Amino acid sequence: MADFTHLNEQERARMVDISDKTDTLRTARARSGITVSEEAYARIEEGTNKKGSVLAVAQVAGITGAKKTSDWIPMCHPLMLSGVDIHFEWEQQEQDAYHLSITSEVKVKGNTGVEMEALTAATAAALTVYDMCKSTGKDMTIGPTYLLDKTGGKSGNYHRES
Amino acid sequence: MADFTHLNEQERARMVDISDKTDTLRTARARSGITVSEEAYARIEEGTNKKGSVLAVAQVAGITGAKKTSDWIPMCHPLMLSGVDIHFEWEQQEQDAYHLSITSEVKVKGNTGVEMEALTAATAAALTVYDMCKSTGKDMTIGPTYLLDKTGGKSGNYHRES
Amino acid sequence: MADFTHLNEQERARMVDISDKTDTLRTARARSGITVSEEAYARIEEGTNKKGSVLAVAQVAGITGAKKTSDWIPMCHPLMLSGVDIHFEWEQQEQDAYHLSITSEVKVKGNTGVEMEALTAATAAALTVYDMCKSTGKDMTIGPTYLLDKTGGKSGNYHRES
Amino acid sequence: MADFTHLNEQERARMVDISDKTDTLRTARARSGITVSEEAYARIEEGTNKKGSVLAVAQVAGITGAKKTSDWIPMCHPLMLSGVDIHFEWEQQEQDAYHLSITSEVKVKGNTGVEMEALTAATAAALTVYDMCKSTGKDMTIGPTYLLDKTGGKSGNYHRES
Amino acid sequence: MADFTHLNEQERARMVDISDKTDTLRTARARSGITVSEEAYARIEEGTNKKGSVLAVAQVAGITGAKKTSDWIPMCHPLMLSGVDIHFEWEQQEQDAYHLSITSEVKVKGNTGVEMEALTAATAAALTVYDMCKSTGKDMTIGPTYLLDKTGGKSGNYHRES
Amino acid sequence: MADFTHLNEQERARMVDISDKTDTLRTARARSGITVSEEAYARIEEGTNKKGSVLAVAQVAGITGAKKTSDWIPMCHPLMLSGVDIHFEWEQQEQDAYHLSITSEVKVKGNTGVEMEALTAATAAALTVYDMCKSTGKDMTIGPTYLLDKTGGKSGNYHRES
Repeated sequence: MADFTHLNEQERARMVDISDKTDTLRTARARSGITVSEEAYARIEEGTNKKGSVLAVAQVAGITGAKKTSDWIPMCHPLMLSGVDIHFEWEQQEQDAYHLSITSEVKVKGNTGVEMEALTAATAAALTVYDMCKSTGKDMTIGPTYLLDKTGGKSGNYHRES
Repeated sequence: MADFTHLNEQERARMVDISDKTDTLRTARARSGITVSEEAYARIEEGTNKKGSVLAVAQVAGITGAKKTSDWIPMCHPLMLSGVDIHFEWEQQEQDAYHLSITSEVKVKGNTGVEMEALTAATAAALTVYDMCKSTGKDMTIGPTYLLDKTGGKSGNYHRES
Repeated sequence: MADFTHLNEQERARMVDISDKTDTLRTARARSGITVSEEAYARIEEGTNKKGSVLAVAQVAGITGAKKTSDWIPMCHPLMLSGVDIHFEWEQQEQDAYHLSITSEVKVKGNTGVEMEALTAATAAALTVYDMCKSTGKDMTIGPTYLLDKTGGKSGNYHRES
Repeated sequence: MADFTHLNEQERARMVDISDKTDTLRTARARSGITVSEEAYARIEEGTNKKGSVLAVAQVAGITGAKKTSDWIPMCHPLMLSGVDIHFEWEQQEQDAYHLSITSEVKVKGNTGVEMEALTAATAAALTVYDMCKSTGKDMTIGPTYLLDKTGGKSGNYHRES
Repeated sequence: MADFTHLNEQERARMVDISDKTDTLRTARARSGITVSEEAYARIEEGTNKKGSVLAVAQVAGITGAKKTSDWIPMCHPLMLSGVDIHFEWEQQEQDAYHLSITSEVKVKGNTGVEMEALTAATAAALTVYDMCKSTGKDMTIGPTYLLDKTGGKSGNYHRES
Repeated sequence: MADFTHLNEQERARMVDISDKTDTLRTARARSGITVSEEAYARIEEGTNKKGSVLAVAQVAGITGAKKTSDWIPMCHPLMLSGVDIHFEWEQQEQDAYHLSITSEVKVKGNTGVEMEALTAATAAALTVYDMCKSTGKDMTIGPTYLLDKTGGKSGNYHRES
């Protein structure tokens, strides 16, 4: 019996070791969004969507999504989030297109950052808006989704230049 | 003891009843993507990313994400997906920016469509690429994310006009 | 080598075989509730609870709870629910105690009933109300929780005599 | 392009920030229960329930339920529980009705309390008893469910006056 | 802008399409096991294990594990299991080593087999025995784990030759 | 109304209290494996398995499995793992049987060990290999699965004597 195969190191994936990183307060804010039709916009604002109150449900989806991030992103470390907040803001883009800007804010006291949790929260909220509005048309577009800023941790602060 | 409050109907959310819809073959394809730096692109293609093989992990994340869609999107019906496939394609955008186009394809025999599962699969793959590459810079942008097409069901086929 | 121990049959638990039951439309309605203080009631109705819109979040919790029933109740069969709906109604009980009555309604086309899903939905909504209001006092009481009625399946219809 | 809509602040839900709360030992005990028929009671005690050993399964459901609390209650913080224990006690109520009293006890070293985990544990155990006994009749009633006491944290100790 | 990279087809993973397979009754039985010390054996049989009734908990873990198979095995299709049963049998191996044989049996009416569900159920039960007994020594060995037989589906019946 | 039944203490299961254990760095390594046919071996190594790159997917399954351990093993404490790594190595056993040895390595800073996480990671990887290769024959055998070593914690270090 002899070892005769050595796996290609390129094929390796790992959840990298963070046990020597220190517990500090870390925050991250991310942004996503969704562009919807005038009809979808009106139903959201008037509360006449047949699946219910779109933004209330999307907000819950964003918060619960943040908590499930390490279940969705395979190499992401589990974290005990200390706070999650989701904000919405409408922007009219053209005559008949409306963009819902979604901003998430996540905090943790832990030894790795919460960038992925913030991105996942904003994304889950956007997907939920799509789901609740898709009976009015499937031409909606989600994104762009990106990190706004982060604080804490050895890599220091980050602020996206828009 | 008297009832005296009636909840505002606007506030209601529900998982709408689909019990009278028929079981048919349904498919959906969605697209997401992520724009990364030249360094991130090179590490992905050369297999030198420290967290491992980025696209292999992202593909698994997309497939498992599709299966968890009804856990992520509150008003989404649970479905027993019969197939999920994820494709990647690189497009050079500028001198030093590379866009990874992510296409998901989902099938089911069931009584509601799989648009959300396709969108979720593509999104989970994109978020996973972000996670695995973020040590090379956090300026990546995810999206746009949208439905390419769907077939089956009472509402008929849909094909996005690009 | 000899077999010498036979497990006590009493200790056995199983997810009973339902493969010979037929797929039919099945419904169930359950009720739970929570008795809260006047302050908690006022904050819910005025929308001044610091954790947010209590009933909107509780409704989402009830619906997502119904979908997770087989993950919570060990011997419960997984089911693809076709619809879930949650209703709230306030009843004043005494000068300073308010009871929120929570009614869930669940539908499925499947080979086992949805009684547990209805009970779980109503319960998850009640627990969520407790969570969101507990900063105003922990004396709230949840329940009673019971099945209102069910239809479909071999065991026939059930309607609770109040 | 101008911002023109401002979401109603009432509609906001958030997982409140607890990052400035200190890690201390916290405990909570909660009680739920279920009233069952004489037949159900007899089958539980004699171990002749067709789904298996009711209280053994309910105890596991209570413990695993406690660990999943932040997945069930949307605004609940994830916590690494350090201990969960579930106790059962029968009380005869009338000639042919038996009440199973379910007491849960949860401990954590963390920066928020475990009241919801204790309530969820007791509730999950009660729902499991219902599930395993429902073939003997659906007239069972779950509850009342309430917090018995808690210790630790800034808000101090709580002990319910019965 | 030009496509210039084509992913290596070898790197592809997919949840293969089973939408053209027919719904039939399918069963599978698998076996795992664990070899434990005399002390662990005695504590299990005498009910003196400090974590509780080992086999009762392991049985629940096996059943709930079967239901979560598609969450654990990335390319596994979600299935609505119609029945799961777990059996234990002790075999004395040597003077001071005891082997607990664990047999799982899973049924489904569906369009793909339940081999993985049966293997996962038996495995989850074995891991749970390890967890509950590990304070008495960590030299336990799990396995071998294999499929005993399967019925139903296009690939026909299988029976392992021992 | 009188208490008249006292549950058999033997039947009790609990998630034992670890709140007085100290947070230290803890590691564990476990081993599992799977014996496959020459055809399965060849398809894995040549990348011609129809479900995709077997070892890449198995590695992801092992890592995500480690993170879900407390969801799979009922009395297992939730832990925030700081690192997970999975290694594969082939050993030829006979002319036409190949054994894939799977070694997992898990780290945590916490108040209980990660033996179960390491065992679960190795097992999930082995089950995933079975799933992806089972179309080439179902005679594969998983195991033996055991703990290689652990460090940290009050019970001290452990190293299995092979």
